Amino acid sequence: MTRVPDPSPELLARASGLRRLALDLGQCDDDGRRRALRAMADVLSAARGRVLAANTADVAAAEAAGLNPSLVARLRLDGGKLDGAIDGLRQLAALPDPLGVRQLHRQLDDGLVLERRTVPLGVIGVIFEARPDAVVQIAGLAVRSGNGAILKGGSEAAGSCAALLEALQEGLADGPVAPGVLDLLTSREESLALLRLDGLVDLIIPRGSNALVRFIQNNTRIPVLGHADGICHLYVDRDVDVAEAVAIAVDSKTQYPAACNAIETLLVHRDVAAEFLPPAVAALGAAGVELRGDEAARGHGVAGSASDDDWSTEYADRILAVRVVASLEEALEHIRRHGSRHTDAICSRDPAAAATFLARVDSAGVYHNCSTRFADGYRYGFGAEVGISTQTLPPRGPVGLEGLVTYRYRLRGQGHVVADYAAGRRRFDHRDLPL
Amino acid sequence: MTRVPDPSPELLARASGLRRLALDLGQCDDDGRRRALRAMADVLSAARGRVLAANTADVAAAEAAGLNPSLVARLRLDGGKLDGAIDGLRQLAALPDPLGVRQLHRQLDDGLVLERRTVPLGVIGVIFEARPDAVVQIAGLAVRSGNGAILKGGSEAAGSCAALLEALQEGLADGPVAPGVLDLLTSREESLALLRLDGLVDLIIPRGSNALVRFIQNNTRIPVLGHADGICHLYVDRDVDVAEAVAIAVDSKTQYPAACNAIETLLVHRDVAAEFLPPAVAALGAAGVELRGDEAARGHGVAGSASDDDWSTEYADRILAVRVVASLEEALEHIRRHGSRHTDAICSRDPAAAATFLARVDSAGVYHNCSTRFADGYRYGFGAEVGISTQTLPPRGPVGLEGLVTYRYRLRGQGHVVADYAAGRRRFDHRDLPL
Repeated sequence: MTRVPDPSPELLARASGLRRLALDLGQCDDDGRRRALRAMADVLSAARGRVLAANTADVAAAEAAGLNPSLVARLRLDGGKLDGAIDGLRQLAALPDPLGVRQLHRQLDDGLVLERRTVPLGVIGVIFEARPDAVVQIAGLAVRSGNGAILKGGSEAAGSCAALLEALQEGLADGPVAPGVLDLLTSREESLALLRLDGLVDLIIPRGSNALVRFIQNNTRIPVLGHADGICHLYVDRDVDVAEAVAIAVDSKTQYPAACNAIETLLVHRDVAAEFLPPAVAALGAAGVELRGDEAARGHGVAGSASDDDWSTEYADRILAVRVVASLEEALEHIRRHGSRHTDAICSRDPAAAATFLARVDSAGVYHNCSTRFADGYRYGFGAEVGISTQTLPPRGPVGLEGLVTYRYRLRGQGHVVADYAAGRRRFDHRDLPL
Repeated sequence: MTRVPDPSPELLARASGLRRLALDLGQCDDDGRRRALRAMADVLSAARGRVLAANTADVAAAEAAGLNPSLVARLRLDGGKLDGAIDGLRQLAALPDPLGVRQLHRQLDDGLVLERRTVPLGVIGVIFEARPDAVVQIAGLAVRSGNGAILKGGSEAAGSCAALLEALQEGLADGPVAPGVLDLLTSREESLALLRLDGLVDLIIPRGSNALVRFIQNNTRIPVLGHADGICHLYVDRDVDVAEAVAIAVDSKTQYPAACNAIETLLVHRDVAAEFLPPAVAALGAAGVELRGDEAARGHGVAGSASDDDWSTEYADRILAVRVVASLEEALEHIRRHGSRHTDAICSRDPAAAATFLARVDSAGVYHNCSTRFADGYRYGFGAEVGISTQTLPPRGPVGLEGLVTYRYRLRGQGHVVADYAAGRRRFDHRDLPL
């Protein structure tokens, strides 16, 4: 097991300095943060050549070192991806300000007024693998939400990440936001020590493999936003539009099989198995999906055989486990035992069955007659996505900028003291005021 | 250091069984949960004699064992306290339902509608010391919010807690909520193992000493709602109504000195120290408060001397540290270094100074011209309070029923698949619908 080291005095000093600058950023008004984002986009655009050259060098080194091709593909930053990231910064500037939103406004008594307003978290720590364009997206989200950010990318992307961060900091140089609100850790030792910066870092966002996320969750007291597993299910109920259910199954599995919101298991009610499975097997087979079924599913054309492990495996690939169930109850029980509380869907024409499924499956997303692939911040209309959380407490599901803010209660009085209320000389009236 | 044991198979089975019953409770409608609360109140009222007798026995045993008098006082459950707890159950029944609240309602495209609704967390684990009436309050909060609850009280209150729980479960016996949604742990071994029930318990709420809370925070991966320290400050700015500031200082310190929202440190701007401190010293002295000041404060009549440790000590008693600061900035820096992000207040007639303080102090509660003692769920108008959280992420500050619920996204379609949007055949319209 990897040991998590204590932060060095140098790292503590850097993180403390960044935190102070982040508090100033939290005081920066909406316009200032919008201007900062646009300047970041402008300078990054101008630094295009330098950034792409740094990335070409990283890619060449990775290929020479024999890294696996899918990792090299994620590492590669072409002009299109870079333009997308730059455009993302401008889009963030256009999103409504997540800060200062009044969530509660209440007169407790004459002249004693309570409000609850959103404020930044402080500093976020983001650990990501390979994809260097994540630097741009995270820096943008952090500045928009008034938070400082400590980033750590994969070592194979070190040159690209440094070039990107340099450009972004240059963009901040002449504006109201200090470039020092963004920092990049380069050594593995430092990135591990980041997990120990309680009190200086308020939220850790891991973006990478399940193993990375699980390691982080197990090795930090700082709250972690994310999810390790994405074991999503599609349940095909007995009363179903077969063609529609087949299309939803194909989309949920194949539209992007490596995504966390792709299904890993298809549950089929036994009364519809003979009608649904043959066309589903054909359509999924045509899409290159390997099927692994239980005995009943194999009786309806599923070629492969599923073992118990298959029900708890996130394939992240064109493989799908198939199980025939005797009832909706059995499907719910299967999801309860094997699911990861990410996103689960039912196909059914029976409103009562759909209502039961949506009420009883305890996942961040519960869907009826549509693809699990919709579980995404952009598709939900959040504009930008920090990640998808499968924890129980909010924020849960796809998390936009609102996952990067918290709130504070402000109470303004005119000399009010509690003794007056305890003695009955004054009484609370608790009258809600307009937000 | 106390070792946290693995849960026994028996405890795992109990917790799993409770979790299943809790999921059913989560499906129970508002009326059913209200009726359950009223029945709990009725049976508890009828069981009054039995409960008070059990408590009398606990108190006698505690006294015989030589427990300290303040612990015995908290252990004692008289008729008044019990009536208050019963009344609390009826009040909870009258509060608006925290479940099923629609927080978001958005058409993503024709026939594809997203909503976000509040749902219960699942199971809460509550560890409390001494006060047996906490059983009633927690059981009530849990049932109102649709959650199961595993409770662990202090061993000295074992008989009282058992009698209370028995009555509450009897109240549930004939209604829509299974009595098994409430359980009481009795051994120390079990209560430690509760911290290891990740996946079966969704939130731990400690109610007790700072040491208890800190131990729990350090020994569980389950989210913990609460706070260890309550080091609250009152800063008296240079331009201030002296009489008003003195009254606020006295109330903030003495209205209930053992409370977490009582101030531990008084910061005074040096320009007002000569005018403010003499009457403040007199008023606080008259209220029995021991003052410990820095050198400048001692020059204005503060008798005791403060060491560095005093700035970070929660006295929870009639003791107050006093420091004279050169500026608002110095006060902010003091609070940043020594505060516990609970509740901090400024007294000032200068709107700019107040605005700076309220914007820059990063505590759950930031107050202007009123007592820190207002930091309380009842005073905020939340009806019932789970506790006060000093964590950064929501829920923060005084937490009512909303801290015991989370939400789930529901998406209903008509065969919608993501491939159509990826290919440009369909487009999202993201139109918000009425809540």
